[in-house]
Amino acid sequence: MAGFAGAYDSICGRAVNAAIIRIFGGGFQVTLAPDLLDKLSRIVGANKLLMDAEAHVQYGRDWTRVETPSPAAVALPGSIEQVQALVQLANAEGLAIVPSGGRTGLSGGAVAARGELVVALDNLNQIGAFNSIDRSVVCGAGVITEQLQQFAEDQGLHYPVDFASSGSSQIGGNVATNAGGIKVIRYGMTRDWVVGLKVVTGTGELLELNAGLIKNNAGYDLRHLMIGSEGTLGIIVEVTIRLCRAPTDLAVMVLGVPDMPSIMSTLAEFRQQMELTAFEFFSEPALQKVVAHQDLQRPFDEPCAYYALLEFEQTSGSEMDQAMALFEHCLEQGWVLDGVVSQSVAQARNLWRLREDISETIARWAPYKNDLSVVVSKVPEFLTAVEALVNAAYPDFEIIWYGHIGDGNVHLNILKPESLSIADFAEQCGEVSKGVFEIVREHRGSVSAEHGVGVLKKPYLPYSRSPLEIELMRAIKRSFDPNGVLNPGKIFDL
Amino acid sequence: MAGFAGAYDSICGRAVNAAIIRIFGGGFQVTLAPDLLDKLSRIVGANKLLMDAEAHVQYGRDWTRVETPSPAAVALPGSIEQVQALVQLANAEGLAIVPSGGRTGLSGGAVAARGELVVALDNLNQIGAFNSIDRSVVCGAGVITEQLQQFAEDQGLHYPVDFASSGSSQIGGNVATNAGGIKVIRYGMTRDWVVGLKVVTGTGELLELNAGLIKNNAGYDLRHLMIGSEGTLGIIVEVTIRLCRAPTDLAVMVLGVPDMPSIMSTLAEFRQQMELTAFEFFSEPALQKVVAHQDLQRPFDEPCAYYALLEFEQTSGSEMDQAMALFEHCLEQGWVLDGVVSQSVAQARNLWRLREDISETIARWAPYKNDLSVVVSKVPEFLTAVEALVNAAYPDFEIIWYGHIGDGNVHLNILKPESLSIADFAEQCGEVSKGVFEIVREHRGSVSAEHGVGVLKKPYLPYSRSPLEIELMRAIKRSFDPNGVLNPGKIFDL
Repeated sequence: MAGFAGAYDSICGRAVNAAIIRIFGGGFQVTLAPDLLDKLSRIVGANKLLMDAEAHVQYGRDWTRVETPSPAAVALPGSIEQVQALVQLANAEGLAIVPSGGRTGLSGGAVAARGELVVALDNLNQIGAFNSIDRSVVCGAGVITEQLQQFAEDQGLHYPVDFASSGSSQIGGNVATNAGGIKVIRYGMTRDWVVGLKVVTGTGELLELNAGLIKNNAGYDLRHLMIGSEGTLGIIVEVTIRLCRAPTDLAVMVLGVPDMPSIMSTLAEFRQQMELTAFEFFSEPALQKVVAHQDLQRPFDEPCAYYALLEFEQTSGSEMDQAMALFEHCLEQGWVLDGVVSQSVAQARNLWRLREDISETIARWAPYKNDLSVVVSKVPEFLTAVEALVNAAYPDFEIIWYGHIGDGNVHLNILKPESLSIADFAEQCGEVSKGVFEIVREHRGSVSAEHGVGVLKKPYLPYSRSPLEIELMRAIKRSFDPNGVLNPGKIFDL
Repeated sequence: MAGFAGAYDSICGRAVNAAIIRIFGGGFQVTLAPDLLDKLSRIVGANKLLMDAEAHVQYGRDWTRVETPSPAAVALPGSIEQVQALVQLANAEGLAIVPSGGRTGLSGGAVAARGELVVALDNLNQIGAFNSIDRSVVCGAGVITEQLQQFAEDQGLHYPVDFASSGSSQIGGNVATNAGGIKVIRYGMTRDWVVGLKVVTGTGELLELNAGLIKNNAGYDLRHLMIGSEGTLGIIVEVTIRLCRAPTDLAVMVLGVPDMPSIMSTLAEFRQQMELTAFEFFSEPALQKVVAHQDLQRPFDEPCAYYALLEFEQTSGSEMDQAMALFEHCLEQGWVLDGVVSQSVAQARNLWRLREDISETIARWAPYKNDLSVVVSKVPEFLTAVEALVNAAYPDFEIIWYGHIGDGNVHLNILKPESLSIADFAEQCGEVSKGVFEIVREHRGSVSAEHGVGVLKKPYLPYSRSPLEIELMRAIKRSFDPNGVLNPGKIFDL
């Protein structure tokens, strides 16, 4: 019965009834009153209310590992009605809820570190009605991305949003964070594939949004407001997803370029003539690390400052000739120094690995990671400015760049020098962040291109969004969740 | 100085300070106090404040011609700052504002019939910065759609949102209504091409949203909330538009089909294999009317219940063979009875006219028009249900169907029988509407697929949106426009 509200205030900016929560020492250690446990257990069933420490660690953290997980309880509802009942109870009892999907986020949006009730959607994992004419499928929030991709393939169709965490991320979480990935240049973000949503609001009411329609101009599009709101406006419980034609015979080209402006010219030239399904980039240091640590070969001997990886569909048989002609043109212009193109599915997969294995490869250097975007044309000057900043302040830091350059989305990675302790590195990176976000602001970019804001980027939101925008977000939050029970302290403080 | 607020209440549900507005008799006839006129004129300049009856008629109505235009004044601001000053004045003086674009709307969203100040964006018509790498262009809200389409073409690019009113509709209005049109199946709605917005809120503050970014997951996407909000949340003053690769060598096929399910099978078959840029439909009565009144020929002799018009790009030269093979397959299945394909640009244009000239052709019958959508697969049963309803109640009504069937968007048109007066026809159509919207609700469709809600569909919004959704829309409206000065009485009452 100790005063929790005060401490909580610093997180979410509003008092949550703390009668059931206790703090010990500096951290958050939480117990729930027996009658509340009983009420929770009556909603989801005793075996779906997890109270053991292991579950609390597992469900209290995401891929960031930054905050110490400390939920008060983990509930695994088995129906939409149970989710509603949990939210209604949270309102009545002043409990904070953290909606929880695959917890593969990189901004701490699904972290429960302050005695919250985790509502994990794992068991709403049914793939429901499929319609071949609408090319739509109804998914419970807990359906795994890969499960949906496989389902689409089984129907001769395609779910095109793809990223490293497809094997464990859930559709509900993808929608809540508007997940992006490696095919955005052609297929857009998760946002572009959601034609219907069921959402439990902060008052426990059920919103059914857009009902699978392609065209619907009847009032404000609350569906788009919900997408990317990171569980702060509602708990996404069901998603109707649009599928598309499966791509045929994808070919991959890796091109070496002398500098960033040349990548831009190459991108413009290819896009003018062809539909690309991907346009990624990575730097020479990134390539060196991957080749050294994975079972992969350099695409060609000549080292280049940067590499572009582009992918295209071969529907007619003429695309390869077209791509080769464009490659020749870029060579002549000096934009490209060398290149390879896949001749088989296996080769295409290996070329992709040069880009996709970077993240895993550099993990051993405990890198500082940042996910940023600017408009595509500003990427070269943005990279230059960030490199200058880091090199001036920390000349022994090694920067690894890669990302979705066709969308203006770059992943900045700084490797920890061996000589530096993790704590010192973290502190120095904190200093780097401020400077980097200042450059983001100058370039009118985004402090979070695809990873969301969560808790990690909350302090930096004002670098991308104006005080007026943040005030309007707060007002919207109050409309959907008047008591502030949903994911408090994420994105912004109330 | 008579009490205007009471009458106004019935429109927008909240009192607007009416000290400056007078009502005569049953209609709204409005004069502004000289000091207010003076303030308005100091903001935009005397020659940009239109007070003549002709301008008031012109700027007070849209294409619906349903309500009698009666604005208090028409202001033509020449800058964003002037728009802000007008909104600030409106707040101070209790004036209602109707934001005004090309006024080509079909739901009365831009009608000013109750003494409002029309803020017409005509003079914010500059096309600004273009970037060939980002393929983005900055447009003042008053840029005409066709002007943007031409600009894109001049850059070797394409603005793909296209519809009948392209010659007079404005970009700001397109965004405010999320305009759709004839290429949605391939290119989506206006929403899908907006990468940045400048918006003046109901308090006169300037919101800058998304700044041209492709990927931006930093907080709620207020841009999407603004798109389609019909001027009730803010006045769109500037739009950054993304352009795309220009399509090459478009071919058009018109297929005769025996029934609606066959159209669905044909659509599914073609989409599985090809990217279509359009999939439209019209009925035999629609075709007969067009052929009788335009300088056009039937595509083939055999009359069919319905016709599908589909369009595809020929990028590689093999698409025509592919389309012909699919056509043969559909013939064999009995889904298609006959068909033609364009062999030239002129032929393609003439085939398109069979579909595009319908609206103009049937205008002479003063038709009842309704713009509806359901999920694509439900179109056949939806059409059957509506026809049964109309035929049972009004057996002498002739129904003309056409629309964007690839998106589930059908335009229902009922021709006025010669024997019926306009007033009687309108009354009977009012009865039809209720039944039609009931069928829309049963099919979980939209009462407005692409025309917005405005005033005409306001009474029917609950057929598509739940009380909770409408309550949340009201709450959002209050956040952006606390004094209710922006387009009151449109979409919903406060």
